[in-house]
Amino acid sequence: MSITTRSEHACCGGRVGFYSHMSASLGLEARFAVFLPDGASDAARVPVVHVLAGLTCTEETFLIKANAIRFAAEFGIALVATDTSPRGAGIAGEDDSYDFGSGAGFYLDATQAPWNTHYRMGSYIGTELPALTEAHFPLDGTRRGIMGHSMGGHGALVHALRAPDRWKSVSAFAPIVHPAAVPWGEKAFSGYLGPDRASWAAQDATLLLRAGHRHPTTILVDQGDADQFLAEQLQPWYLDEAAKAAGQGLILRRHPGYDHSYWFIQSFIQDHLTHHAAILRG
Amino acid sequence: MSITTRSEHACCGGRVGFYSHMSASLGLEARFAVFLPDGASDAARVPVVHVLAGLTCTEETFLIKANAIRFAAEFGIALVATDTSPRGAGIAGEDDSYDFGSGAGFYLDATQAPWNTHYRMGSYIGTELPALTEAHFPLDGTRRGIMGHSMGGHGALVHALRAPDRWKSVSAFAPIVHPAAVPWGEKAFSGYLGPDRASWAAQDATLLLRAGHRHPTTILVDQGDADQFLAEQLQPWYLDEAAKAAGQGLILRRHPGYDHSYWFIQSFIQDHLTHHAAILRG
Repeated sequence: MSITTRSEHACCGGRVGFYSHMSASLGLEARFAVFLPDGASDAARVPVVHVLAGLTCTEETFLIKANAIRFAAEFGIALVATDTSPRGAGIAGEDDSYDFGSGAGFYLDATQAPWNTHYRMGSYIGTELPALTEAHFPLDGTRRGIMGHSMGGHGALVHALRAPDRWKSVSAFAPIVHPAAVPWGEKAFSGYLGPDRASWAAQDATLLLRAGHRHPTTILVDQGDADQFLAEQLQPWYLDEAAKAAGQGLILRRHPGYDHSYWFIQSFIQDHLTHHAAILRG
Repeated sequence: MSITTRSEHACCGGRVGFYSHMSASLGLEARFAVFLPDGASDAARVPVVHVLAGLTCTEETFLIKANAIRFAAEFGIALVATDTSPRGAGIAGEDDSYDFGSGAGFYLDATQAPWNTHYRMGSYIGTELPALTEAHFPLDGTRRGIMGHSMGGHGALVHALRAPDRWKSVSAFAPIVHPAAVPWGEKAFSGYLGPDRASWAAQDATLLLRAGHRHPTTILVDQGDADQFLAEQLQPWYLDEAAKAAGQGLILRRHPGYDHSYWFIQSFIQDHLTHHAAILRG
């Protein structure tokens, strides 16, 4: 489990670094990034929030554009950022679509050839990346949260609902809440998981809630009302209805005028770090 | 003086927009960006800080990476961001160097052919862009400040020292303070201004101070001690010595461990907006 340092930079009293390693889950080299706040040490391990970006992004995007580091530093929380898919799997057509293949791993393990060899982002972010980063950095794995944007919001909700013992806090910006019912999700799940829709249920936050999965904390979701993907791809009312029926705590905030971009995310990121800090720091 | 809206996004209670127009100074289409805080209107014009980015950047870079908008919003200050050079001038070799030609306009008017036709960023940011943005947006041109990074720090210092009546506040991150004495500046000035070093003096903050130029306010400069360009290209002691000799107010802060990146800028950007707000808002 060795890692290679690509670059490290002082930031907000702590340090942000970009790393690569050979991933066992993906069978390829993978990149990730870590922000460590001031004072983190083996004797004083810090809570950590994993951040999952959306379609077309990389491990750099969220840390550069979300303005999260200032608040992570303030709360003494580390951030771990992952890439959005394996890279260089060598599959024909892998780079042809912005919403399938490279940059669009959907944080799940593909079961269909040829994707099932390398497209295993579910195992990667679910187990490998937490273990790797907690072995190499002074992170407290008992205080680990997750947040994401769009496809990354889907990833955060699904992983937290399936493994609330592993992800103690969860929030999302403009998440895909019911991928089995919207074009982005139907395309990705058909390709990665095949035509049997029963196999899709474990990768869909709304269906997980309907099937009895719960998270013990309140989930925070922000959604812009001027989001160009709201009506077709996101449809947050699915999550709202499923949470209400399930008794799942959910704060779903709608923001007039805000779109799908990181300009939206940076406007409300402070509230998300505050949310995670309240749970992870108690 | 018409402008074309490329995109606009709600952000931090205000609006960030990306625009283009046909520039008279440059003789080419140019791009710029504006952040307008909540409440700005023709009846309530707001102070504005122009932000100048460094080598290789565009009008997007500073607004995406510096985390400035949150604090501009808080202080009710607008931001105007410019590109770093003309684009598409069609000069042979224009795109060959990262530190000369496109992306490296040095915020001056070239006097040497073939650069003198289009490479006129001095006039562009000195007069055209302020006039354009103050005609199209509710900005108060009597409360206009300027800041920049690296080559943009050079631009901010030079423009403010030459025209303190136009630029009421000034600050910089890791600026090139004495371009006539360092490789980046010698290369750019030789190309744009020719071999006569006397013509370089008006484009050099240290030489302007030595020649009697002053700014009535204290200049704020932040510099990282782990900056990879510190010893060869930046050499902030030149500015420090010239300011002391001239009685020019200067706060030059050195930050151990910080490099030349926007990770450094975002760590101290709040102090810069606070500095400009104290002068522009009184």
